[in-house]
Amino acid sequence: MQIPAPDATPTSLSRRSLLRGSALAAAGAGAAAITTAPKARAAGVDHIPAGSVVLFQGDSITDAGRDRKREGSANDAAMFGRGYPFHIAAYALSHHPQANLQIYNRGISGNKVPDLDARWDKDCLDLKPAAISILIGVNDIWHKLNGHYDGTVADYEEGYNALLARTKKALPDTRLIVCEPFVLRCGAVKDNWFPEMDERRAAAKRVAENHAALFIPFQTMFDDAVAAGTKPEFWARDGVHPTVAGHGLMAKTWIEAVNS
Amino acid sequence: MQIPAPDATPTSLSRRSLLRGSALAAAGAGAAAITTAPKARAAGVDHIPAGSVVLFQGDSITDAGRDRKREGSANDAAMFGRGYPFHIAAYALSHHPQANLQIYNRGISGNKVPDLDARWDKDCLDLKPAAISILIGVNDIWHKLNGHYDGTVADYEEGYNALLARTKKALPDTRLIVCEPFVLRCGAVKDNWFPEMDERRAAAKRVAENHAALFIPFQTMFDDAVAAGTKPEFWARDGVHPTVAGHGLMAKTWIEAVNS
Repeated sequence: MQIPAPDATPTSLSRRSLLRGSALAAAGAGAAAITTAPKARAAGVDHIPAGSVVLFQGDSITDAGRDRKREGSANDAAMFGRGYPFHIAAYALSHHPQANLQIYNRGISGNKVPDLDARWDKDCLDLKPAAISILIGVNDIWHKLNGHYDGTVADYEEGYNALLARTKKALPDTRLIVCEPFVLRCGAVKDNWFPEMDERRAAAKRVAENHAALFIPFQTMFDDAVAAGTKPEFWARDGVHPTVAGHGLMAKTWIEAVNS
Repeated sequence: MQIPAPDATPTSLSRRSLLRGSALAAAGAGAAAITTAPKARAAGVDHIPAGSVVLFQGDSITDAGRDRKREGSANDAAMFGRGYPFHIAAYALSHHPQANLQIYNRGISGNKVPDLDARWDKDCLDLKPAAISILIGVNDIWHKLNGHYDGTVADYEEGYNALLARTKKALPDTRLIVCEPFVLRCGAVKDNWFPEMDERRAAAKRVAENHAALFIPFQTMFDDAVAAGTKPEFWARDGVHPTVAGHGLMAKTWIEAVNS
């Protein structure tokens, strides 16, 4: 974001570099989508039949305070909540006004893989989405560390694999997007989260590969942001729930990955 | 937005053209910001002192359901509401994590220029913003058409000029961004809105020019979108309040204009 100021000059190389990196990445993604992507990679929302459903699923990070009473209203602002699905939807709807996309958010705070499984007919398969983005896993470890759950890493992977197998069986043409579960090292996230959190991230990646799903590397993204000199709290004060900045970065990364 | 699908092929040239246009615009804006913009135009948020305030002001379009109880909390998700300021903030904070921006939304539903004037000390000058974005004008005509207000176009222009003169006097270094008031031709917007609505847009542009403010051409943007074959209701069902798609398009245009 630049605000015109005729007499100002650059003061920070590192900030300019951050801007350069993000702008170049965006420009590169756009260019690839237009000119260099082979047909095998160029299919997108434009090629989904008019009126298709895009669904976001997950836990509180996806939920983000959405209005449950409006959950039947596609593309409704309050239905989306205040997280990355809302920013992605605003981008997708405004960039593809003639695609007649019907976008829903059905994330529910506190959910783990078994919770998704229990409501998958109603909150996924019945909607017949053409694309599903899932972010699940942080409660699977958090509730275990708190003593309220006993699911292992293997349980997480097995349950997640079964959920996607069930999805593929019911909706064989649906595009699957698996988002990497992530934490920032601050707030509620203590040393006892590791190495299990890393093992669960690796499990999510294997699940994505098993089902030819697109994998969105949110942990790598946040790790890179912290390595570049930002505080973990800037992205997620409690280590788990992203700030506005965190959700904005997730939306940016999601869009770039889906466009690549 | 593209979702990978190995076997899909383009089905709609017009949709591809829309994508091409938007992607090229984004790429072009990024490239200009990086390599070709002279220093006189390249100053941005990176060059505002750390901790600077960015303020969004206006009526219900800016308000967008924000939580008034949190209005003292910069960068808070619920404080932002569900409109273009939220999407812009998510973009700005995630692209400039080290700028320590403090972004506020103080739009209030139903406001006209005199209402902004009445609360300008508390809701603008006291915050000492480094940049102010204002979108005001639709209620100035709407309430008049409804018989609840008698302010003329000249009153609008005079009041708006006075508001910016007062702002420049108190905050001479603050960047001013004047957003064009707009309507879509649907819903509550009938033929009797014209030509007065066009006269008020022209007045807003003159106000921007008078104070060397950046002018964001929202009406042109929506006119172009409708001319490209989309329905006005897709952008604002009642002709006044943007949908998620409408707010997304506003955010995109605002960011591109501020980056140019």
